[in-house]
Amino acid sequence: MIDFSAEKLKLTDALNLDSGNQLEDCEIAFKTFGKISKKKNNAILICHALTGDQFCTERNPLTKKHGWWNVLVGPGKTIDTDKFFVICSNVLGGCMGSSGPSSINPKTDRQYGMDFPVITISDMVRAQEKLINSLGIEKLFAVIGGSMGGMQALEWAVSFPHKINAVIPIASSYRHSAQNIAFHEIGRKAIMADPHWYKGNYYSKKEYPKRGLAVARMIAHITYLSEPALQRKFGRNLQNSELFSFDFKTDFQIESYLQHQGISFVERFDANSYLYITKAMDYFDLSQKKGGLSKSFKDNNLNYCFFSFTSDWLFPTSETKTIIKSLNEANAKVSFIEIKTDKGHDAFLLKEPDFHQTLKDFINGQVKKNKI
Amino acid sequence: MIDFSAEKLKLTDALNLDSGNQLEDCEIAFKTFGKISKKKNNAILICHALTGDQFCTERNPLTKKHGWWNVLVGPGKTIDTDKFFVICSNVLGGCMGSSGPSSINPKTDRQYGMDFPVITISDMVRAQEKLINSLGIEKLFAVIGGSMGGMQALEWAVSFPHKINAVIPIASSYRHSAQNIAFHEIGRKAIMADPHWYKGNYYSKKEYPKRGLAVARMIAHITYLSEPALQRKFGRNLQNSELFSFDFKTDFQIESYLQHQGISFVERFDANSYLYITKAMDYFDLSQKKGGLSKSFKDNNLNYCFFSFTSDWLFPTSETKTIIKSLNEANAKVSFIEIKTDKGHDAFLLKEPDFHQTLKDFINGQVKKNKI
Repeated sequence: MIDFSAEKLKLTDALNLDSGNQLEDCEIAFKTFGKISKKKNNAILICHALTGDQFCTERNPLTKKHGWWNVLVGPGKTIDTDKFFVICSNVLGGCMGSSGPSSINPKTDRQYGMDFPVITISDMVRAQEKLINSLGIEKLFAVIGGSMGGMQALEWAVSFPHKINAVIPIASSYRHSAQNIAFHEIGRKAIMADPHWYKGNYYSKKEYPKRGLAVARMIAHITYLSEPALQRKFGRNLQNSELFSFDFKTDFQIESYLQHQGISFVERFDANSYLYITKAMDYFDLSQKKGGLSKSFKDNNLNYCFFSFTSDWLFPTSETKTIIKSLNEANAKVSFIEIKTDKGHDAFLLKEPDFHQTLKDFINGQVKKNKI
Repeated sequence: MIDFSAEKLKLTDALNLDSGNQLEDCEIAFKTFGKISKKKNNAILICHALTGDQFCTERNPLTKKHGWWNVLVGPGKTIDTDKFFVICSNVLGGCMGSSGPSSINPKTDRQYGMDFPVITISDMVRAQEKLINSLGIEKLFAVIGGSMGGMQALEWAVSFPHKINAVIPIASSYRHSAQNIAFHEIGRKAIMADPHWYKGNYYSKKEYPKRGLAVARMIAHITYLSEPALQRKFGRNLQNSELFSFDFKTDFQIESYLQHQGISFVERFDANSYLYITKAMDYFDLSQKKGGLSKSFKDNNLNYCFFSFTSDWLFPTSETKTIIKSLNEANAKVSFIEIKTDKGHDAFLLKEPDFHQTLKDFINGQVKKNKI
């Protein structure tokens, strides 16, 4: 067990949720990196993706590996923790210390399981805003995130525009597409079909739905990569031999790679959290808010910088372009770069020099403008 | 139970398999439509895809629906059964009467299950060739098929070029890509993770691996459709309400549609057959035969007509182009049309006027040439 108590906010009031429910005793686990300036104007909120966590840099205490955005965040890096006060919190519904289905339900003193209320991206952001308040920050220098993290950044722009200076959504969208919902639903079905899921009440059992969660992760993982990258990296290379096995063991390297992704994932992630967070992503659709995208983004004075990646078929560039058009219509300050890469959706997590340099330039521009 | 005995070939000799094994008492179930001409030169072999069967037209006795290629095959249609003698056989490894894992193992008098030998596309074609011989046909007018059916058509061109006049591979490839192997492997994992799979020995049990097979089908089904078509057809439309359910029941129409695909599939398909046939597809790679693609296709006098579909991301046009280049290098007679459609891989099964007309023209050209 990891002790998250050092950096955890316990909300004093119940958190209002989009579903109409309220969440009592809500907790948000977070990590901070760097120091807050005297003017408290150097805070960057990093929002994580579906399976991410608050350990965006330094060592992740669970996996013992570098944080998931270590390439981008740290002393002297693009998001420079020598200059900025970086905040990263585990999303509501998560399993790394924030309230989620694996948390204790105060009403029963047992894990929530499927009694945890269904949450939305907006609920996640509402909880983050309370965290930012508790840290005494009135205005964030920037909110940044990739994939679901980008959804949260956009939600911040719509819900709390007066509390942020810049918004940086990466490889993201204003809404989840039919194909993306489809992939998520199959992942959920795979988890719920696992006999060790026990309708979500597996916490007290010997087994948990490992195999279903691994299948869900494997499905999702394909969507994070591009077909050309898979072909380049694995092609039809065989795993152990020059000949086919002619059985149902692992023949191809791509099979072995995916199985590894599935197996290592179940060691660090809660199956019910996977259900809740994918559902939150599926529900996300800013175009249904406040009468459409343009109106949602109206009358705010934010600085936007969008990134997309050419080979990302999960959140293709066309999705970002739709937002850009609406922001143009709303007369917003928008920058947008499509990065050429064959690394697919996962490119936002990887060393992409063009992406990192462009982001650095944007941040530097905002530093000058805001005299930080 | 359907009685396949009327149209079933029982091989007298054991069938040699690529694995080095032999299959005793091998049976191939088939259907024929139309009449053979006196010269026996009007026979067209239709090869079915992963989940297809011999019922390519007329009524399918199991599903009670039209055959899977009813739009294309029948009296007066593109593949005109008033003119042609159409043969369609259930593939080796299948579950509609041909020998497969659900067949009785003569050595044990029980279903093979996972004792059925692993088979290849080449094995399927070797069995088909014996069927064609048994029908007294020396040379096929054409071999045609989409997806895995196209793989079989290409295998015919390589293995039995002297026994065919024309080859028509549709939405297919000379090898299965890394991404396609990945999707198949996940489907197999989902089946094998189902507790009702019983290591393949579910035939005598009360339950069979319905849920795993449904998940496998749902994964595959997404790959058969294009993202634009999914968005156009379903978008983010909700199933039963104008509001989100805020639970884990079905919210979106796309979820309901996929679930329906999964549920209806398990009623008509054997889970073990799904394992074996996907494996055969994964193993398929003509470029590994006879020293490369060009050499494989060398020195034959066939007439090729290829089709691909613009929105097919499972078997994209680029795969077909690779074959075309090799055939050009082999100085073969090749026609190739890329059909513009947003219907994805499944377009080969649907009403696509441009596809059907081009195919008709090609067939008519071959009729004139061969004086049929």
